[in-house]
Amino acid sequence: MSEDLEWARVSSERGPDLMLFQVRYDTMQHPQSKDQLRRLVIESVDWVNMVALTSDDALVMVRQHRFGVGYATLETPGGMVDAGETSLQAAQRELLEETGYGGGRWRYLGAVEPNPAFHDHLCHHWLAEGVVPVQAPTPGQGEHIAVELMSESQMTAAVASGELKHALALSALSRVYELWPRPFLPAESD
Amino acid sequence: MSEDLEWARVSSERGPDLMLFQVRYDTMQHPQSKDQLRRLVIESVDWVNMVALTSDDALVMVRQHRFGVGYATLETPGGMVDAGETSLQAAQRELLEETGYGGGRWRYLGAVEPNPAFHDHLCHHWLAEGVVPVQAPTPGQGEHIAVELMSESQMTAAVASGELKHALALSALSRVYELWPRPFLPAESD
Repeated sequence: MSEDLEWARVSSERGPDLMLFQVRYDTMQHPQSKDQLRRLVIESVDWVNMVALTSDDALVMVRQHRFGVGYATLETPGGMVDAGETSLQAAQRELLEETGYGGGRWRYLGAVEPNPAFHDHLCHHWLAEGVVPVQAPTPGQGEHIAVELMSESQMTAAVASGELKHALALSALSRVYELWPRPFLPAESD
Repeated sequence: MSEDLEWARVSSERGPDLMLFQVRYDTMQHPQSKDQLRRLVIESVDWVNMVALTSDDALVMVRQHRFGVGYATLETPGGMVDAGETSLQAAQRELLEETGYGGGRWRYLGAVEPNPAFHDHLCHHWLAEGVVPVQAPTPGQGEHIAVELMSESQMTAAVASGELKHALALSALSRVYELWPRPFLPAESD
């Protein structure tokens, strides 16, 4: 069945550079109708984030202003995989830069497609157990990050209240913790 | 503490239209250093997706070629909230268009930020129980979608194998189902 779903790429065109990303437009041919349609791809390197735990089982979390939504969000540490890095190396570098924590035992938790409709990258999740403070954080010029140590119950309370709702942070955390009773039924709706 | 994290928006500039999205560049002032930095915002309407169950507890899932990643993915149904719609109306419309299923009892499962670093939209999750086939699917010109009815165990097997790794589909499903043993430790790493 999957073969019937695959579109052919007729041509490809470079679009604008978005700083974090490079835009590409592909002209794609519908497998049945043969219609040609222009489709957006936002090209990116892979991303990483991590569930980082101290030896006391405190979660090392970060809070920072996020320019997409326009407010400060509570998240797991993470970032982009630089050229020549493995996702593990990127995860260890980002944890150190953003929080000053390092060391620990690292285990891979799998990867997700942040949005396969238009993003081409994966986000890799890692679990780091027994991390310790090894230096002062060294955020980039464009970063201003507060480090927060949280218990599991503080984190799940932030999930339940909607304070913590970054999909990729929840994705990493959901592989280590029960985040909510299932089915999760908040009071609010729209 | 959060006040210290908030940047001031100095100016805002319209960027390229990306078909699905509108790009905006904000010039932001670092709260401490007062450095001004240009930041990307990819503006979008909100998105919706849903866990749709028949009266036999079969999951109504979709498989389609996704242009970002360049292959067919297994997902929950979903789409974008049109102007004037609530997220519930959008979810019901998208389920009907993509799968032909309708009716059922609908409950809100909460919303996530797909990526607050550069996206400004939310993705709303819905649970629909007892949906029934009411018409043939009516996909858009640019869509070619296969509908698959799956049991819970078939879905969780697809999650475990990595076949189903759309972050927003996993986010909706994780509010209804146990998706993996915790911590989730796949064999592969990079």
